[in-house]
Amino acid sequence: MQVYMDNNATTMVDPAVVEAMLPFFSEQYGNPNSLHKFGTASHPAIARAIDQVYAAINASDDDDIVFTSCATESNNWVLKAVWVDKILHGEKNHIITTEVEHPSVLSTCKFLEEQGVNVTYLPVNEQGVVDAQMLRSFITEKTALVSVMWANNETGMIFPIKEIGEICKEKGVLFHTDGVQAVGKIPVDVQALHVDFMSMSAHKFHGPKGIGALYIKGGQALSPLLNGGEHMGGRRSGTLNVPYIVGMGKALEMATENIEAKMATIRAKRDRLEDALLKLIPDTFTVGERDHRTPNTILISIRGVEGEGMLWDLNNAAIGASTGSACASEDLEANTVMLAIGADHELAHTGIRLSLSRYTTDEEVDYVIDHFKSAVERLRSISSSYAKVKPTPGGEATECAVH
Amino acid sequence: MQVYMDNNATTMVDPAVVEAMLPFFSEQYGNPNSLHKFGTASHPAIARAIDQVYAAINASDDDDIVFTSCATESNNWVLKAVWVDKILHGEKNHIITTEVEHPSVLSTCKFLEEQGVNVTYLPVNEQGVVDAQMLRSFITEKTALVSVMWANNETGMIFPIKEIGEICKEKGVLFHTDGVQAVGKIPVDVQALHVDFMSMSAHKFHGPKGIGALYIKGGQALSPLLNGGEHMGGRRSGTLNVPYIVGMGKALEMATENIEAKMATIRAKRDRLEDALLKLIPDTFTVGERDHRTPNTILISIRGVEGEGMLWDLNNAAIGASTGSACASEDLEANTVMLAIGADHELAHTGIRLSLSRYTTDEEVDYVIDHFKSAVERLRSISSSYAKVKPTPGGEATECAVH
Ligand SMILES: Cc1ncc(COP(=O)(O)O)c(C=O)c1O
Ligand SMILES: Cc1ncc(COP(=O)(O)O)c(C=O)c1O
Repeated sequence: MQVYMDNNATTMVDPAVVEAMLPFFSEQYGNPNSLHKFGTASHPAIARAIDQVYAAINASDDDDIVFTSCATESNNWVLKAVWVDKILHGEKNHIITTEVEHPSVLSTCKFLEEQGVNVTYLPVNEQGVVDAQMLRSFITEKTALVSVMWANNETGMIFPIKEIGEICKEKGVLFHTDGVQAVGKIPVDVQALHVDFMSMSAHKFHGPKGIGALYIKGGQALSPLLNGGEHMGGRRSGTLNVPYIVGMGKALEMATENIEAKMATIRAKRDRLEDALLKLIPDTFTVGERDHRTPNTILISIRGVEGEGMLWDLNNAAIGASTGSACASEDLEANTVMLAIGADHELAHTGIRLSLSRYTTDEEVDYVIDHFKSAVERLRSISSSYAKVKPTPGGEATECAVH
Repeated sequence: MQVYMDNNATTMVDPAVVEAMLPFFSEQYGNPNSLHKFGTASHPAIARAIDQVYAAINASDDDDIVFTSCATESNNWVLKAVWVDKILHGEKNHIITTEVEHPSVLSTCKFLEEQGVNVTYLPVNEQGVVDAQMLRSFITEKTALVSVMWANNETGMIFPIKEIGEICKEKGVLFHTDGVQAVGKIPVDVQALHVDFMSMSAHKFHGPKGIGALYIKGGQALSPLLNGGEHMGGRRSGTLNVPYIVGMGKALEMATENIEAKMATIRAKRDRLEDALLKLIPDTFTVGERDHRTPNTILISIRGVEGEGMLWDLNNAAIGASTGSACASEDLEANTVMLAIGADHELAHTGIRLSLSRYTTDEEVDYVIDHFKSAVERLRSISSSYAKVKPTPGGEATECAVH
């Protein structure tokens, strides 16, 4: 058996999505901007995909949804365009974001700081969410943009987007949300709240990697990040990636169809897994209240067990998990969200993220419970730091097991 | 029969490329940045694709090749990064390019002009190429970058990249070439000449739309366009599009294998088509000497016949052609390259581009010759402007056939 529990990093492309994309590689392969029938043949499929994305997030006809190559592009686009439009060519010079955004927001903010922009990085509270009223207190008349994620990739915590949107609207400040971990996982209705820009990425909801979108409220102005041949009304140039556009539409439609029922199913499995781990393994805790999390995510901390060691043992049992964002998986840094929520440095190295999908089965959950437990037992038995709590068997203790 | 002769706009994805990509959608779907085996499973395929691209353009181990979402991104990246690195944070303020670049270069240059950058747009001569010695005369100590395409998308004309590279090297100016219409069509050896940056796009050589690359000589510094999670060594963030990376490698390997032989086959068909059209249809001419063109391209001008009218008639005969760049196909502007080479405004509306591929058959060439000829005859018979040359049959003449 092998079990993939890293669906916040990326997901399997649904076979029905692959099937929907296939005709657009070698059959209807024309450039949709061409005037001939090879080009126009894909127009109905593209129009359908656009409709599917609009419907999934309840966008209005006045809004724009622009396909991009990924959410990293969508995030870079909003931040850099606001820099050009409102800071270089305007009176503003301040952006507010959080300490726990995805690297595609945080690194872009670092870049903007190098360009002289003031950036405020808000901390999160012990629950791992940003406080909307605290955010309000940082808005000044120089503030061009607030960028706060809808749901956090590492903890699954859902942020108070409605409240923040209202504050931004009241203050006349643009509001961007990185919706990557929300769209396709929880209901997202852009008309039920105020958000100017929202980033999405298909590979988080069983679409392909390498396509995303940016929602733009009311079709408002925003300098392009990719200038060029006037594709997508001049908003984002580059020959349209027809198969992936079709795939993203299909995947999002599938993910949001009966989303409440899908959530309930995933949540039941997640809760059973979480309950079992907390009950069977002493000295563990999970981050954030379940009801405020996306229904598929657990971030569990295991005292005395380094995250990377756990990953290794889980991997040996053919279980795919993560210590946090996949982007950062290759460097063995402490989990930044755990640091942000106040964990000490040692504990911040012990976080393991398990993220389920609608393909996760009960057998897989049972399998993970078993192997997770034995991995913790093995690792604690050789852990020098956990020895303070529980004696290690002689000889096997190693100094560098936890550092 | 239907004939696709618009391969400079985009190409059919080779079925072998689709097959190479397929396992990476629903089987080996892990995020390659993840540490577990779901993530690492695709590493060999990615490494192979990288090798294929390096080999195809003869890059050295010191060079970087970074996958992007398209050549539009690669072009925007180089131009905007040079702006940030050398102009905003440096002493330079000048960029040299040509009037006939792709919109992804030209629009980006317009954007940079709005930011205060001086841009020189070099004209091309009657052959449709830029003169390297003229270019030299425009370089000043303020010049940060020269950006000149390797081959033109509308005419197929090959630019003197080797000479320009030498001039840039001598003058200490960075040199970028948009290699989109060259790579996969003619031999490209980045070690045989001097080029700092080269853009490529897979969908021009039977790979998928929505993936490109940027070649970076000697791995030199260049600010990222997409900041984020340190993918590709921090050069271009966003979760790797594994299927398309694999597909681009495969497609480029196939395109460049025995490229001389492939070129000869395509050139023979192109020349036969061109000879027949010029011989059978009076008052036509083609742009640029054949030997200085990519072997698949014809830009033919037909006096008295508006390009859009021709496209329409050809489309009715199930032939896909173009009036120039597909990006601009939706707006009925005069062909900018033809204007640049000195055609009058009327003639610049009469250009039709036929671009072949390795899939083009002799039967398809015959079919196009027949239908092209009858389309011209029909359109001239109703053309008011061509009436000056040849009388139109009474009653069918229409004032707006040519405008
Ligand atoms: C919250 C969040 N934002 C942005 C991204 C970036 O998405 P992409 O890989 O499409 O660039 C991710 C995942 O990688 C994410 O989890
Ligand atoms: C010369 C040239 N440069 C750049 C591009 C842009 O390529 P892409 O569609 O991959 O962005 C094209 C084609 O569209 C082109 O012909």
